[in-house]
Amino acid sequence: MNNGIKDQTVTMAHGAGGRQTSELIDNIFAAHFANPDLTADDAAVLNPPVGKMAVSTDGFIVSPAFFPGGNIGKLSICGTVNDLACMGAKPLYLTCAFVIEEGFPMDKLEEIASAMEKTAKEAGVHIVSGDTKVAGKGQVDGVFITTTGMGQIEDGVKVGGELAKPGDAVIVTGDIGRHGCTILLEREDLGIEADIKSDCAPLWKTVEAVMNRTHDLHVIRDATRGGVGTVLYEIAKQSQVGVQLDSANIPVQPEVRGVCGMLGLEPLYLACEGTMVIIAPKEEAAKIVETLRQCPYSKNAAIIGEITEEQPGKVVMMTEIGTQALLPQPGGELLPRIC
Amino acid sequence: MNNGIKDQTVTMAHGAGGRQTSELIDNIFAAHFANPDLTADDAAVLNPPVGKMAVSTDGFIVSPAFFPGGNIGKLSICGTVNDLACMGAKPLYLTCAFVIEEGFPMDKLEEIASAMEKTAKEAGVHIVSGDTKVAGKGQVDGVFITTTGMGQIEDGVKVGGELAKPGDAVIVTGDIGRHGCTILLEREDLGIEADIKSDCAPLWKTVEAVMNRTHDLHVIRDATRGGVGTVLYEIAKQSQVGVQLDSANIPVQPEVRGVCGMLGLEPLYLACEGTMVIIAPKEEAAKIVETLRQCPYSKNAAIIGEITEEQPGKVVMMTEIGTQALLPQPGGELLPRIC
Repeated sequence: MNNGIKDQTVTMAHGAGGRQTSELIDNIFAAHFANPDLTADDAAVLNPPVGKMAVSTDGFIVSPAFFPGGNIGKLSICGTVNDLACMGAKPLYLTCAFVIEEGFPMDKLEEIASAMEKTAKEAGVHIVSGDTKVAGKGQVDGVFITTTGMGQIEDGVKVGGELAKPGDAVIVTGDIGRHGCTILLEREDLGIEADIKSDCAPLWKTVEAVMNRTHDLHVIRDATRGGVGTVLYEIAKQSQVGVQLDSANIPVQPEVRGVCGMLGLEPLYLACEGTMVIIAPKEEAAKIVETLRQCPYSKNAAIIGEITEEQPGKVVMMTEIGTQALLPQPGGELLPRIC
Repeated sequence: MNNGIKDQTVTMAHGAGGRQTSELIDNIFAAHFANPDLTADDAAVLNPPVGKMAVSTDGFIVSPAFFPGGNIGKLSICGTVNDLACMGAKPLYLTCAFVIEEGFPMDKLEEIASAMEKTAKEAGVHIVSGDTKVAGKGQVDGVFITTTGMGQIEDGVKVGGELAKPGDAVIVTGDIGRHGCTILLEREDLGIEADIKSDCAPLWKTVEAVMNRTHDLHVIRDATRGGVGTVLYEIAKQSQVGVQLDSANIPVQPEVRGVCGMLGLEPLYLACEGTMVIIAPKEEAAKIVETLRQCPYSKNAAIIGEITEEQPGKVVMMTEIGTQALLPQPGGELLPRIC
């Protein structure tokens, strides 16, 4: 890469559509995103997916933009790839639109682009088109990225939040709350030192492995904003069923549990960015968990509860001493904003 | 619409993924964007385009968000629809991701959503999926919108910036520089009163009308950031040809010409958001212009010059008194940022 541009910061001219914009795009974005489908024109020309197409968009404004376990670039790929994976869709194409604050260091921008390149490769998705805007100092906080993904829905898979059935098992693909906890510690000056990293990861290959083992899946949902608790409440409402969780079986990293204990937070409401909820018939659950535990990002997969006919629309927690408590309804500001 | 929410301002809770987020989405976005393809899930499930698919993304951060002739919502649909149209693609699907500043008035947000609804309907495109983030006060200036569009490339059309040929006519679909001039007057306290409105408009139907008349088109390009001048320089470079413009034939609204005269600006470098450059064989030019003049947004269409073998990579202006001057190369910050 041209050291001339690497030493610079982003200026308004880099977003004005002229020569400097081309330099920024060539040296930072095109250099990292190169693939046969990436366009330099206003629109990419692509072979559409075969069968049904899944489309998802997500804006990323996480602060800080760099955190243990990832950065906003990695997150912007994982978030959209995982949204597609939740529909049983293989990610094919991705667009990304940047809004960058004047004065943002070019080497940091390259680090973000590099993380996007690596994560997109891992997920098997092509970045096909992009956009770059520069906002004046103070008009935006650092860098915002919006990604939109297009995927091909694999044959024979039909999943959706309204498809949970009484008797189904509730599975999480890994330990919960790590991303939310990481961002919380980075943002707030709490004086807590803890060895916690975001779980941020692209999960298409994980979902694919499960789908290769069984097509008998009812719901796949990534537990981002609002965490596993919010996702389960949504599913309970959409499917008009109850959810009963077994507190003892919910995987939480001890450090996350420790931080939550100190701050009075419930890990079920802390965001994950590399952990999903899967709901499937009870008789499929064991092999799903077995498959998950062989995948790199789901070694801590576990069955955490079941779907019930009773208490439709509610999520109930069975404690280790056998008492039952209603999980509080999510609402209001779920600190911190994590994507 | 529920007056309860309409009187509010946007709070952090509206972006936290819980109950208030659902209220915002239901009352503002879903209420305006409803169509059979709009999803409430993480991803929309769609029939892919037939043949080749065009995909384009664009971020909109224009300030002020409301301006004579439109607002950021209308602009965010037009920009992406027009990028697709430039590839000869019929817009089918659109996603939109919002970043909204805490404290933004809900009624203004509804006005934006309403403009998006109207413009999407006019362009014949379905909004299929969205995302809403709320940023803290001062972390973002008002509202940013990123749209991504997917279109179906119509059979038998092959256009691209590298396809201009010596002898081709250079056409603009309307008078130039109105959007840039409008935003400039709104942003800067110049003490100039002028009756100028943005040309912001969705142009797919316009392009379709031209394509129905002739498929013999070489380049279609919308003249947004950097204006017609920048676009022509790009085409000259990509096609390795010269561009010779006839100053007397370039349509500029007298008010825009007046403002440019006072400020020493060249209208060719002011952005358009509803005006395109079309390059086609000379013998097709008259009927293209005739067709354009029958469409609502291109009544001022004109042939403004031709493609030459001489001076490849350059844009030359013939003045009314017969002298020739090289149009300056675009570069640096092209004031004001207009999208």
